[in-house]
Amino acid sequence: MTERTFVLTFSCRDRPGIVLAVSRQLFEVGCDIHDSQQYDDPGSGRFFSRIVFAGSGAHSEETLRERLGPLMIDLDATTWQVRDRSRRRRVLLMASGSDHCLGDLLYRWRAGDLEMDVAGIVSNHPPERHATLQAAGVPYHHLHVTPTTKSAQEQEVWRVVKESEADLVVLARYMQILSEDLASRLHGWCINIHHSFLPGFKGARPYQQAYERGVKLIGATAHYVTPDLDEGPIIEQAVEPISHRDTPEQLVRKGKDIERRVLAAAVQAHLQDRVLLNGNKTIVFPA
Amino acid sequence: MTERTFVLTFSCRDRPGIVLAVSRQLFEVGCDIHDSQQYDDPGSGRFFSRIVFAGSGAHSEETLRERLGPLMIDLDATTWQVRDRSRRRRVLLMASGSDHCLGDLLYRWRAGDLEMDVAGIVSNHPPERHATLQAAGVPYHHLHVTPTTKSAQEQEVWRVVKESEADLVVLARYMQILSEDLASRLHGWCINIHHSFLPGFKGARPYQQAYERGVKLIGATAHYVTPDLDEGPIIEQAVEPISHRDTPEQLVRKGKDIERRVLAAAVQAHLQDRVLLNGNKTIVFPA
Amino acid sequence: MTERTFVLTFSCRDRPGIVLAVSRQLFEVGCDIHDSQQYDDPGSGRFFSRIVFAGSGAHSEETLRERLGPLMIDLDATTWQVRDRSRRRRVLLMASGSDHCLGDLLYRWRAGDLEMDVAGIVSNHPPERHATLQAAGVPYHHLHVTPTTKSAQEQEVWRVVKESEADLVVLARYMQILSEDLASRLHGWCINIHHSFLPGFKGARPYQQAYERGVKLIGATAHYVTPDLDEGPIIEQAVEPISHRDTPEQLVRKGKDIERRVLAAAVQAHLQDRVLLNGNKTIVFPA
Amino acid sequence: MTERTFVLTFSCRDRPGIVLAVSRQLFEVGCDIHDSQQYDDPGSGRFFSRIVFAGSGAHSEETLRERLGPLMIDLDATTWQVRDRSRRRRVLLMASGSDHCLGDLLYRWRAGDLEMDVAGIVSNHPPERHATLQAAGVPYHHLHVTPTTKSAQEQEVWRVVKESEADLVVLARYMQILSEDLASRLHGWCINIHHSFLPGFKGARPYQQAYERGVKLIGATAHYVTPDLDEGPIIEQAVEPISHRDTPEQLVRKGKDIERRVLAAAVQAHLQDRVLLNGNKTIVFPA
Repeated sequence: MTERTFVLTFSCRDRPGIVLAVSRQLFEVGCDIHDSQQYDDPGSGRFFSRIVFAGSGAHSEETLRERLGPLMIDLDATTWQVRDRSRRRRVLLMASGSDHCLGDLLYRWRAGDLEMDVAGIVSNHPPERHATLQAAGVPYHHLHVTPTTKSAQEQEVWRVVKESEADLVVLARYMQILSEDLASRLHGWCINIHHSFLPGFKGARPYQQAYERGVKLIGATAHYVTPDLDEGPIIEQAVEPISHRDTPEQLVRKGKDIERRVLAAAVQAHLQDRVLLNGNKTIVFPA
Repeated sequence: MTERTFVLTFSCRDRPGIVLAVSRQLFEVGCDIHDSQQYDDPGSGRFFSRIVFAGSGAHSEETLRERLGPLMIDLDATTWQVRDRSRRRRVLLMASGSDHCLGDLLYRWRAGDLEMDVAGIVSNHPPERHATLQAAGVPYHHLHVTPTTKSAQEQEVWRVVKESEADLVVLARYMQILSEDLASRLHGWCINIHHSFLPGFKGARPYQQAYERGVKLIGATAHYVTPDLDEGPIIEQAVEPISHRDTPEQLVRKGKDIERRVLAAAVQAHLQDRVLLNGNKTIVFPA
Repeated sequence: MTERTFVLTFSCRDRPGIVLAVSRQLFEVGCDIHDSQQYDDPGSGRFFSRIVFAGSGAHSEETLRERLGPLMIDLDATTWQVRDRSRRRRVLLMASGSDHCLGDLLYRWRAGDLEMDVAGIVSNHPPERHATLQAAGVPYHHLHVTPTTKSAQEQEVWRVVKESEADLVVLARYMQILSEDLASRLHGWCINIHHSFLPGFKGARPYQQAYERGVKLIGATAHYVTPDLDEGPIIEQAVEPISHRDTPEQLVRKGKDIERRVLAAAVQAHLQDRVLLNGNKTIVFPA
Repeated sequence: MTERTFVLTFSCRDRPGIVLAVSRQLFEVGCDIHDSQQYDDPGSGRFFSRIVFAGSGAHSEETLRERLGPLMIDLDATTWQVRDRSRRRRVLLMASGSDHCLGDLLYRWRAGDLEMDVAGIVSNHPPERHATLQAAGVPYHHLHVTPTTKSAQEQEVWRVVKESEADLVVLARYMQILSEDLASRLHGWCINIHHSFLPGFKGARPYQQAYERGVKLIGATAHYVTPDLDEGPIIEQAVEPISHRDTPEQLVRKGKDIERRVLAAAVQAHLQDRVLLNGNKTIVFPA
């Protein structure tokens, strides 16, 4: 039987013997640890771990969950997960009128650089708006929205999420604020790109704000969506230098490059199970 | 007679013929333009210029001010300046308990990398606090301050500024907020280093704020001091990546490197007459 | 008549009065200088200038060349050029099997971020290889090449360059070495992207070389093509950090992001007439 | 008894059960793992590990070496080490005429940012050359060198290394090439800073080389010294953008900032036992 690779991630209260207990259990199950990263948070007293291990072809996510479950209960692990690395996540991409992030994710997916299946595209704009994207074969859901239809539209969004069996939602410059209800349902599996270096320039038109303040760097921030707008756990950030010569339009143009890079890096980290939530912060293990 | 080099900086309302008028006047005076940089701000409709030119030994700042003055009046230049590049600015350094920025500026000055004379050091801490700094020969003014003596202490600061003939004041981690009065008097010639990437994390303990927010980059900002705390025109900014592993103490340590680098770059730009004020923003011409 | 904007670039031996002479001539022609950047190279004793100016609708490239020509002869300007900014350059894109740079340039062109017309695509691979690119309407020239047909293929390449009226050729990961003859003909208007931080890792398989040497940063370099492979004048470079965890395959993946960014920046600088040749080096005026 | 923290680093041939074996042994000895980082090198088939653990006050480096030794033999660990984190390394700093790196390391040491003791300073220049450094109390060894006295001088260097009980030697811009013999003796515990982004611009005058080639970034490289000049395992690298305006002198000035930052980071990584040798490459675990 061929070897299969799995990723175990979990967090629990820190205490002596965790590494031993987990490595013993994996050894007894017949698995071999290829990589292991951990973090003891002195602030919260919690332990975070990501272990990559190889099993024989006899192992599956289900059998491993059974074999590891009792230990995880013992450790009082509040969240834990075993994934077969060959099972790709199903990702739903949402965008409004701008398509630089959407197009970039589709490009990386087609090039084989993002280990995911694209479950569909949701946009509040019609498909003609994104005609130059090469999205043949990807279901496109045009879900128009107005202030009065927002609630109904979000029900449709949720229906698409469920029917497409998405397990990650990426807001690739989707310029609608999610309701508290929808944001809560997507907690921990919905990534947004904000076009500023948070916490600076929250809210609307961050590049205009940056221009008016006269900053010398602009940036972008990818974070998990929470009901508090622009306040969710940050996954990735980057900045680029600008100068007094840059008009707001040029900032928008330069910013697009940063946004697509930052969003792709955050999505990649999530797909590789390298991001663990720690309250309103993240642990991001290096690739 | 030997050649001397001068820098002319000015800003005025934009209109046709400025470059011609200035280059003609310099040519007639017998000067040769070595470098010229300009910026037309489409927002404010203003023109900003920095011209480096060589004159014969017969020229001095005084004679050039006379010869260029009428043209500057013609152009309605609100601020303009001619400096002999061989005349070094006199810089007063102010610091509180931390000396990484102070020590760094002193090092660069001694190494000949900052074209300035150090007019003195002002601190609200006694000289023993900074005993490891090599500041022999630099006057050290210990001006203790408490909430009740703040006004009197600022009068002392101002006295030192005047008596030391300083034409630039650098707040190298001076942790006292200047009064509106003193900030106004130093408008345009007082540079502060703030230990965050403004406008994020204004006010006190920015690294603790950054830790709590879980950002993935920390930074520093050098800006001119204005009565509005942390709101003055930004000269220079930089950031460095951090990770979930960094404690607040490690952020402080990493931040020190960024702060000293950013402050030195801003001071250097000012000393080289490369920074022009444009309302609450700056033009910073490349070195 | 509406205003039109032009860019004048020239280089000549440095001497007093150049700025005056050019600004006077432009003023007399009825043009207004919007931006002017210059550089006096102390090494070569040469003067480089880029001037953006507005003329009335009566001006054209032809009339301006007539009016400025005598002055340029006077200044002994070896190369000079006036361009109407509204006239877009015609760019021929060449690629082999990898399409990340090609696709990126096409994306930026369609998004309106690169001020050019795409004159065509030349590839030594068939169009099916690049089927996912959205290049509808762009002529695709499949020019197969083998060691024995190289000379004939290059004649075909040159024919396409001429017939498509290209005035810029971009080697967007075109993995064939141009002959000395073709490289010479394209001198100054052919940009290549090399997938290393030159002068490190010249030649083939730079990411494999970087992996073997154990460097901690990888990079990319955009340069003008010359008969000396990987030795042409450098326009733009960038690097990103890597770690011991990165396999050669991951370096290739990370490198693709750097390559497309660096190439796009170099092409943009060329299109905006911000790059001037200075022997085997470049002057790149800031945007 | 108070808790003491230790760092175990080792490398061995990869095989199943290593993590289990080590964590079991540490558990049985009564130690608690605080941090563990590992790397399986697919190229060499070797396993690299760094484990931070707490023991009771009863543990010492000696007792732990006894308790872990048999396991390390079992694992066939070619190099392994247990260090008490409270025991500081003794570092010998070597410099020639430039003191920016030397002064920077001394500053960070005095500020408490580098966890080391300074065992002494060796220079081929007299102490007057570095008079502005605050090195009171640090033994200064002036070991003059000429081509004919090189061998004798290196014997003196080695004597100082032994007598000062140094366990790390830092070439902080020491501009003499070590002989093959001395380089070999210091294998793995001698760090050099080279003032270029290796492998570009090896050898002498790298900034002059960079100027002549017209690169757009300059950098610095910290590496372990080996008999092959500029070819040792790289620990840390960084670059900064430059422009056509930068003269060789300005490159030297800008480079000094990069050099001191890169060297300090490499020394810090070594002091924290985060660097493991992997043939001619390094594993550098994140801080």
